[in-house]
Amino acid sequence: MPSPSPPPPTITFPRSPVPSIPARPVQTAAALMIGDEILNGKTQDTNSHHFALRCFELGIELKRIEVIPDDEAEIVEAARRLTADFDFVITSGGIGPTHDDITYPSLARAFNQDLAMNDEVLSRMAQKSMYRKEWLEQQTDEQRTARERMALFPSQAEVLFVTDDLWVPVVRLEGKLCVLPGVPSLFRRLLDNLMESYIPLPAERPFRHMVFTTLPESSIAPFLTELQRRVKGEGVRIGSYPSFQKGVTVSLIGNNEARVRELGEEVCKEIHGTVVVKDA
Amino acid sequence: MPSPSPPPPTITFPRSPVPSIPARPVQTAAALMIGDEILNGKTQDTNSHHFALRCFELGIELKRIEVIPDDEAEIVEAARRLTADFDFVITSGGIGPTHDDITYPSLARAFNQDLAMNDEVLSRMAQKSMYRKEWLEQQTDEQRTARERMALFPSQAEVLFVTDDLWVPVVRLEGKLCVLPGVPSLFRRLLDNLMESYIPLPAERPFRHMVFTTLPESSIAPFLTELQRRVKGEGVRIGSYPSFQKGVTVSLIGNNEARVRELGEEVCKEIHGTVVVKDA
Repeated sequence: MPSPSPPPPTITFPRSPVPSIPARPVQTAAALMIGDEILNGKTQDTNSHHFALRCFELGIELKRIEVIPDDEAEIVEAARRLTADFDFVITSGGIGPTHDDITYPSLARAFNQDLAMNDEVLSRMAQKSMYRKEWLEQQTDEQRTARERMALFPSQAEVLFVTDDLWVPVVRLEGKLCVLPGVPSLFRRLLDNLMESYIPLPAERPFRHMVFTTLPESSIAPFLTELQRRVKGEGVRIGSYPSFQKGVTVSLIGNNEARVRELGEEVCKEIHGTVVVKDA
Repeated sequence: MPSPSPPPPTITFPRSPVPSIPARPVQTAAALMIGDEILNGKTQDTNSHHFALRCFELGIELKRIEVIPDDEAEIVEAARRLTADFDFVITSGGIGPTHDDITYPSLARAFNQDLAMNDEVLSRMAQKSMYRKEWLEQQTDEQRTARERMALFPSQAEVLFVTDDLWVPVVRLEGKLCVLPGVPSLFRRLLDNLMESYIPLPAERPFRHMVFTTLPESSIAPFLTELQRRVKGEGVRIGSYPSFQKGVTVSLIGNNEARVRELGEEVCKEIHGTVVVKDA
């Protein structure tokens, strides 16, 4: 009988330094989800919703989410277009060791770069694998080559180590396109650390206020239209979201919390609504 | 005290006839999800996953999902581009009575059409509302106008009544772009009926087989690469999807179920795997 594996040791690494040069705050963002498994229904994409929530909390306007297949031409086209159009772009998926993981080579092509092996990643990967050393020594050359593909990045990329306990870095291209893994637990850890420390954030953050009513949407429509017209100049956005045969949630979003709450009171009175924290 | 409302009566309508002219089967599809509420994190989009599952089951290749804001210019651009590129396109969201519901007018502009009121929809809407007649009679002109916006479609659209108990139709433009509501229960009912009867489907449907292994992804990578090379000509697609610190799910997809099962046995043997029905 094989002896049980020892628990993996705790290994930590230094994080990448946060750039001290002030950069223009990120205003707009886009997400490029790369994966056949989402398009063929095997996997429900939850990463883009996590990203949407983070963007909202941090005052970044997420303008677009695209889901595309593991296809070089499509990755090249979408990565170039989104990077040209928005301040901050993430990709999710396609960075593992197998044949269907083509995100890094496709992005290298998108931005006319070669691929280069990152020694620091190889070293961290090796340290993290020490506890299964015997097992790894049995890997063939081909299997080792497959592992090392995970350290083969576009040659001019920044390699950001945003956590101290994972060997996976965030690879950043053109100063704005950040490559993240598709596995949700890893995606979230890396994204949250990246956005907290490595992205220049806007000074202001929006406040969302929601009011629920059982009145039909058409009955509240004229009031909401007029209200939106009145508060547009203040940057307040009004949304109206029906739940089938239940009622309507009205959302008010703006940077001035006191003003949004004040408008919320007016909305409550006018549409016989109640303030809700979560969607009906 | 007001008397309790009577239960709504059961009203059914005739469905639109299914066209008998044979059309070329739909091979590729795209989904355009329209809604600020998805991009600002208020709502997690589940409609695109439902669409992805239906496409897979019916043998249609979903090639792209895009989420865009309630913004006319963005709807126009995306609707034109996706309709040019794919056989079957759906939109979800933005067809209610309020100011932020701009899908129909934006699509009319995208395809250079006017808007025209659909009398059959108005009539079905009125019949469905009979049980709250008194209440509706209190609506102002503005409120009635808001309701009637839900029957104001691009003038050259087909108006397909795909269910017998909802007044909401599926509006189809250019013979391929189908407009669906964002509310998930309505989206699903209408989409499922639409795809079952009104879309020319491919003759063949794919079969998905999944194998789970606890081996690291890099160890199985060379075998999978070689296998994908070997079976590509048969139209079999191999995918590899890791779960963090658990293992890897390998997916085999092809139209020939017997062949896919046979390859699945080979995969099981080679990677010390087990067949799984649901993802690990």
